Amino acid sequence: MSKGVTPRSKDYAKWYTDVVQKAELADYSPVKGCMVIRPYGYALWEQIRDFLDRRFKETGHVNAYFPMLIPESFLKKEAEHVEGFAPELAVVTHGGGKELEEPLVIRPTSETIIWSMYKKWINSYRDLPLLINQWANVVRWEMRTRLFLRTTEFLWQEGHTAHATGEEAEEEAHRMIDVYRQLCEETLALPVHVGRKTENEKFAGAVNTYTIEAMMGDMRALQAGTSHYLGQNFAKAFDVKFQSEDNVMEYVYASSWGVSTRLVGAVIMAHGDDQGLILPPRIAPYQIVIVPIYKNPEDKEKVMELVNSLEKAFKDQGIRYHTDDRETVSPGFKFNDWEMKGVPLRVEIGPKDADKNGLMRVRRDTGEKTFLAIDAFIHSCKETLEDIQQSIYNNRLAFREENTTDVATYDELKEVIEKGGFARTFWAGDSDMENRIQEETKATIRCILFEKTKESGPCVMTGKPSTEQVIFSKSY
Amino acid sequence: MSKGVTPRSKDYAKWYTDVVQKAELADYSPVKGCMVIRPYGYALWEQIRDFLDRRFKETGHVNAYFPMLIPESFLKKEAEHVEGFAPELAVVTHGGGKELEEPLVIRPTSETIIWSMYKKWINSYRDLPLLINQWANVVRWEMRTRLFLRTTEFLWQEGHTAHATGEEAEEEAHRMIDVYRQLCEETLALPVHVGRKTENEKFAGAVNTYTIEAMMGDMRALQAGTSHYLGQNFAKAFDVKFQSEDNVMEYVYASSWGVSTRLVGAVIMAHGDDQGLILPPRIAPYQIVIVPIYKNPEDKEKVMELVNSLEKAFKDQGIRYHTDDRETVSPGFKFNDWEMKGVPLRVEIGPKDADKNGLMRVRRDTGEKTFLAIDAFIHSCKETLEDIQQSIYNNRLAFREENTTDVATYDELKEVIEKGGFARTFWAGDSDMENRIQEETKATIRCILFEKTKESGPCVMTGKPSTEQVIFSKSY
Repeated sequence: MSKGVTPRSKDYAKWYTDVVQKAELADYSPVKGCMVIRPYGYALWEQIRDFLDRRFKETGHVNAYFPMLIPESFLKKEAEHVEGFAPELAVVTHGGGKELEEPLVIRPTSETIIWSMYKKWINSYRDLPLLINQWANVVRWEMRTRLFLRTTEFLWQEGHTAHATGEEAEEEAHRMIDVYRQLCEETLALPVHVGRKTENEKFAGAVNTYTIEAMMGDMRALQAGTSHYLGQNFAKAFDVKFQSEDNVMEYVYASSWGVSTRLVGAVIMAHGDDQGLILPPRIAPYQIVIVPIYKNPEDKEKVMELVNSLEKAFKDQGIRYHTDDRETVSPGFKFNDWEMKGVPLRVEIGPKDADKNGLMRVRRDTGEKTFLAIDAFIHSCKETLEDIQQSIYNNRLAFREENTTDVATYDELKEVIEKGGFARTFWAGDSDMENRIQEETKATIRCILFEKTKESGPCVMTGKPSTEQVIFSKSY
Repeated sequence: MSKGVTPRSKDYAKWYTDVVQKAELADYSPVKGCMVIRPYGYALWEQIRDFLDRRFKETGHVNAYFPMLIPESFLKKEAEHVEGFAPELAVVTHGGGKELEEPLVIRPTSETIIWSMYKKWINSYRDLPLLINQWANVVRWEMRTRLFLRTTEFLWQEGHTAHATGEEAEEEAHRMIDVYRQLCEETLALPVHVGRKTENEKFAGAVNTYTIEAMMGDMRALQAGTSHYLGQNFAKAFDVKFQSEDNVMEYVYASSWGVSTRLVGAVIMAHGDDQGLILPPRIAPYQIVIVPIYKNPEDKEKVMELVNSLEKAFKDQGIRYHTDDRETVSPGFKFNDWEMKGVPLRVEIGPKDADKNGLMRVRRDTGEKTFLAIDAFIHSCKETLEDIQQSIYNNRLAFREENTTDVATYDELKEVIEKGGFARTFWAGDSDMENRIQEETKATIRCILFEKTKESGPCVMTGKPSTEQVIFSKSY
């Protein structure tokens, strides 16, 4: 388990898979394309889920649960939607020993089943807004899968809201992409670009798709979350109208938004190194691991006395900790093991440390080792964890800025993409041009930036003046 | 929404469905047999989930997630298991536009997929015990469905543990049925009988099944949770062996245990009355609802001042509350609405109450109305909620005892079952006899009681002396 991983410089994809498996985050399952999320990986997802669930409720949302099986005909009601999802569907044709009259698809996303219910629930402006979220599994048949990043089944949340006006629904879509930004930046220590997708890249059925894009350790982009303004598309497909305050019947406006277990993959890829995971303290299942070191019962007693007082202090401070008291493996094995698992702080206490009423503190992010008196450690450990959190974030931000280049010509753009990194530029091109660039460079427009570095500039391809600054990059 | 429900005495089944829909707990979906869990119903499930998740973690368990799709061949590896589940399977035959080489079934329960993984993870006694739980959806094709109680798809948790000895796995199965008992008795205010299932009634693939059985408002039994000792059945089916401390290769011992969204149905049926739901405070999404009453801005100001101080007090005390400040419906409408939704305490504040610095407190369980000074209310409300919790439990316990009869002959048994209620008796019969009784009376042995009223007695059918005291009842 604690043996090394393939170095990133040698084979980044192999490094990723090694870390996922050796840190016991996930495992391959006997079903092609599906993964098993192991307890340590699931604990990361629980942290993400708890943060979001709290923020969703604070912003007025409630949870509900809709059926996983959807009549095939429902998908077809929204033309773009079915076109986008048809190739990825898993289809149930038999149930209870009989062939079904109409095949059912396993939800690839729930707009259709949810809007078929909203038709029953929404009659008047008094029923709006409807702000519902769902935690669920979805299935999208994928040909090339990767643990966490792209699997046939994955876990996610999907918000589906209904509003009386388009402005309100747009506002909601913006509010939620900002909640995702907060999750990434404040909890996952992951700086993101927030922006809008181009027509080519938007969600099947959306008017506008907003996205957060992060840079991974290999300088590729990863789409970490999306939020869609759906206009009246699904309301029209499912005939959902409401009586307005002025007694007019009108179609309802919608938003939807989601993030998935892919975020666990983002954390691994953004922060990890050749020793394994590096977890930001706010998401780490264990923020501190204690490794007691002793060889005889006398030393053990001495060491464990200190360990107990540490545990008490951690409990009082609400710190998530773990004491590795396994007697079947060596301290060195434990050090490697918890480095692989990315625990932010390791505390080593041997008999000599105990004699001095102190301990060795080891930071996972910098490797820094410091001997500290136990009281000094207890008083500073929360602050140290915050410092690690901030420092991991700063590190990623610096890395992204170092690997972002402003480009003015297509040649420059190609050069940046080939070398690896984000190419930032202005854009006034069309869909075909975007497709051509993708064919030639494998890069796509990740987003039209909300926060621009300049107000306007000439389009990298057409030279036309444009106010839309974009990021081009290869992506996951 | 707040219109009345069918009285229980007139049509219990209709009453149940009315309450579920009018209290907005769940709704029928366009997919046969599947339900939509609406936000208010889902909030009940969240309370149940949070209680259990905490208890699972306190008892050393961790969460994980396994694929929902299982190769059809896996189900066939445990002979009894496939026989039990084959008629209920939903089968995916197509994925990504192609017919699959091997059909996949949607999990009806996850023993097979989980034990196929345990084979990879378990090698030595050092890997044991493995104490994993999963929160998931499952699908069992049901012909006759009822909201919450029996639906094709439902939400549940399933624990799957692996142990080095049979004693340890048995102990685990007992520990977890006791956690379920605590959930029912302490949180849901639902007294339960704890016991073992007969051979006829046990889980397909188990050596022993333990169960908790509750009495519903119509005197039928409802199985509220089960825990299974699986022996080495699944370890043998999936060839999962471990090296013992004595260097011997041995098959692993297993337990599994689960409760589902059916528990929400149990809460409705056990406590509800002809005005709707009655929720025990510990599970109620809102423990207190505040209904401010006013007609003019002056009164509103006066009333809302009191409301604000109440809200502050509730927040400080960690009480879940809701202020119904809708201006589009009347106070009477609100009273009915929150009675339907079973909120334990309602607080009414009108201008006259405000003048006296007081409020009207209304208990949902007893209907009792009391005028109280605001300070007196604030100081007593937690205690009142506890009193309601206990009183609902006592009420259900008394109801069950009133409707439980000790029977000594088959005629007596038949009489009790026909009248409605639990028939308690000793049992030394066989499977065939049990089947015959079921055919003739529709009653089954719900459980062989852990807590007996007497050490032994003659079997109700054979007259043979027996130490196994059982409950016969019709059930959901």
